[in-house]
Amino acid sequence: MNLDPPLQLRVFDLNCWAIRYMSKLRQERIGLIGDMLSQEGFDLALLQEVWSERDYCELKQKLVACYPHSHYFKSGVIGSGLCVFSRYPILDTFLYQYSLNGYPYMLQHGDWFCGKAVGLLVMKIRGILFHVYVTHLHAEYCREKDAYLPHRVVQAWELAQFIQHTSKGADVVLLGGDLNMHPKDVGIRLLRGWTGLRDAFADTEHFEGCEDGCTLVPANCFTSKEELQPFPLGIRIDYILYKGLSHFVKCDNLVTTTGTAPGKSIPYSDHEAVIATLCVKRRGEAEGARIRTVEPELVDVVNEARTEVRVGLHAAERQRYSNGRMAILALLLLLLQALMGLSSLAGWDSQHPFPKFSFSLLALLATVVLLVSTALYIFHTIEVKMLQGTEEQMRLALQALQDQLGSM
Amino acid sequence: MNLDPPLQLRVFDLNCWAIRYMSKLRQERIGLIGDMLSQEGFDLALLQEVWSERDYCELKQKLVACYPHSHYFKSGVIGSGLCVFSRYPILDTFLYQYSLNGYPYMLQHGDWFCGKAVGLLVMKIRGILFHVYVTHLHAEYCREKDAYLPHRVVQAWELAQFIQHTSKGADVVLLGGDLNMHPKDVGIRLLRGWTGLRDAFADTEHFEGCEDGCTLVPANCFTSKEELQPFPLGIRIDYILYKGLSHFVKCDNLVTTTGTAPGKSIPYSDHEAVIATLCVKRRGEAEGARIRTVEPELVDVVNEARTEVRVGLHAAERQRYSNGRMAILALLLLLLQALMGLSSLAGWDSQHPFPKFSFSLLALLATVVLLVSTALYIFHTIEVKMLQGTEEQMRLALQALQDQLGSM
Repeated sequence: MNLDPPLQLRVFDLNCWAIRYMSKLRQERIGLIGDMLSQEGFDLALLQEVWSERDYCELKQKLVACYPHSHYFKSGVIGSGLCVFSRYPILDTFLYQYSLNGYPYMLQHGDWFCGKAVGLLVMKIRGILFHVYVTHLHAEYCREKDAYLPHRVVQAWELAQFIQHTSKGADVVLLGGDLNMHPKDVGIRLLRGWTGLRDAFADTEHFEGCEDGCTLVPANCFTSKEELQPFPLGIRIDYILYKGLSHFVKCDNLVTTTGTAPGKSIPYSDHEAVIATLCVKRRGEAEGARIRTVEPELVDVVNEARTEVRVGLHAAERQRYSNGRMAILALLLLLLQALMGLSSLAGWDSQHPFPKFSFSLLALLATVVLLVSTALYIFHTIEVKMLQGTEEQMRLALQALQDQLGSM
Repeated sequence: MNLDPPLQLRVFDLNCWAIRYMSKLRQERIGLIGDMLSQEGFDLALLQEVWSERDYCELKQKLVACYPHSHYFKSGVIGSGLCVFSRYPILDTFLYQYSLNGYPYMLQHGDWFCGKAVGLLVMKIRGILFHVYVTHLHAEYCREKDAYLPHRVVQAWELAQFIQHTSKGADVVLLGGDLNMHPKDVGIRLLRGWTGLRDAFADTEHFEGCEDGCTLVPANCFTSKEELQPFPLGIRIDYILYKGLSHFVKCDNLVTTTGTAPGKSIPYSDHEAVIATLCVKRRGEAEGARIRTVEPELVDVVNEARTEVRVGLHAAERQRYSNGRMAILALLLLLLQALMGLSSLAGWDSQHPFPKFSFSLLALLATVVLLVSTALYIFHTIEVKMLQGTEEQMRLALQALQDQLGSM
């Protein structure tokens, strides 16, 4: 018999696009987000891209009455951008930084500097143990030729594994964030297939908001119309996912914002917010705990992901090789110059002043090339190791999956 | 009623000291280790410092009959050095890289390049779910003035948190590795207090081996006698720790090797191996699951660890500041030189050849300093973020601890 009334939980998720000096109208928008969160009084607000801790502190101060508990996950050079505001106490937190996250020399993209990660918060709400995850995966800058796809697949795999390994004791698992993947992308299928998480948009009873649940829409004045050209309705890359373990969870209602904030001329962010009303109730004894069966399609999904990782591995090996070669060439040039310098020390005052200058300039160039290529060689070696490690983990997972399917 | 006979598990742990080109008699010792593992037929062998994958493959080939299952954890530039050989199937693996692990410019120590991590293996042995962890923490190079203590404390905290968050579904938790901490060090007390792991050496019924269970002993011909001078018996830094959740675990027997390998003139490694015989049995229904009570001393331990993290934070902030200043100075010098160069372009053929050469040399130096200090500034900024994040996590943990103690 189940006497507990179901728990209604309102969860808010938004990529806030709050990069200091770069995001348009940042302060106004942070103000608007704070006002809205304060008015709406959600149970839980999961935010991404709050890069400046000052913005977080401003929000915290404004929201302390309505959301007395909050946490900012620090990582990378400028912070992970992940933070959470909650009506309920946060009992514990844990951060997992993705092992691969773009390249430090891609300054125009800058993902590497953010230390992309997944944050875990442990909370008890009316006696129910929630494991809440908030994350932000590597951005997709060019869908046709996505150089970051292997890194994003590794991140999706690590996210799935992190959730699987850390959620065993939970009653309910909740994940919110900007996954930078379309609903049918291999990373999402891998994440959902591996963890059994359900998509609030696909499961909801009532939906209101942008068509197809899109969260990056052309109607938003901050989005790039050019990038969204192949997708006239926009794309859905921000998600609220969940699963119940000892409890049963369903999404009663899902809402996205649609461009401008109510009564204002600007939107909250370049992304639309996702707001889910979840209904959580204890499983009746007759229902028992849901035993997850392995879907045979999952084997194909893991294989597909593994292929992407292998593609990334070949690219990383090529990069490592060309950086290593460059470092060796620069070193040889420097040695040659040192030899020439030493041999001509006696007759240094040559008649041609230009060679001396170009000689020094060449030495300067060779030194810079040597330093930079050595650093990049080390970086790509780490990348190779991590891709090999992930590939091996996936191989093991496939084996375990096939054993499970064989014994069914 | 408990009809299952208890499970006896023989676990082997060794830091193999197998660094290519650097460790003495590496190949002979790897051969010896392989022979011994093969003869002894342990259930589980947890190895550290197997840096070369070639050595791992050699061991794997030799041991395949006796240990059909094995895993090598890849990370860092030269691999994590962590590997496991097992008689029982490995169902899943997961790797957590510590967020801090020394400095890349400390080439003589080299820990940064190893990507120190903790590896998790999920195994089912006679129906009992084991979560086996293998790890290796940052080395201690100078106990009196240990610059790496804050990093090691962060690693111990992350290890404790990783074990706590990933072991909820396990029946038995097992951790083996070189923790580079003496038994009374703050990191060990934090790890044991936070996770409830028990020390095989402290709990065993029979012990045989080096006095006080030491694993780095002066009798070993590869250890540095000078470093061990303050500890005539040696030090104990390699551990097998365990806890039973649904099962009861005790250590029946613990053995360490003592210097040279039997019948040989050399030891297996510069560390002594630790071999535990564990007895695992299902808790009787009357016994129930052991409910862990929080020890009030744990508050002091977390506070002590937090102080160490704060000390590290101050040092990291100082380093970041001085590297930032250095980068700005180098940039100013380069700008000044560019200005001088431009202004004297017309009258370049000055009468003094030396200034031109030193001018170029100075530009070279400034460029190198600018590149290196910028990279270090970024590195120390990440370090500051991670130390701040850990300090905040510890603050939250303390609060939760105090709430728990208050409600007891």
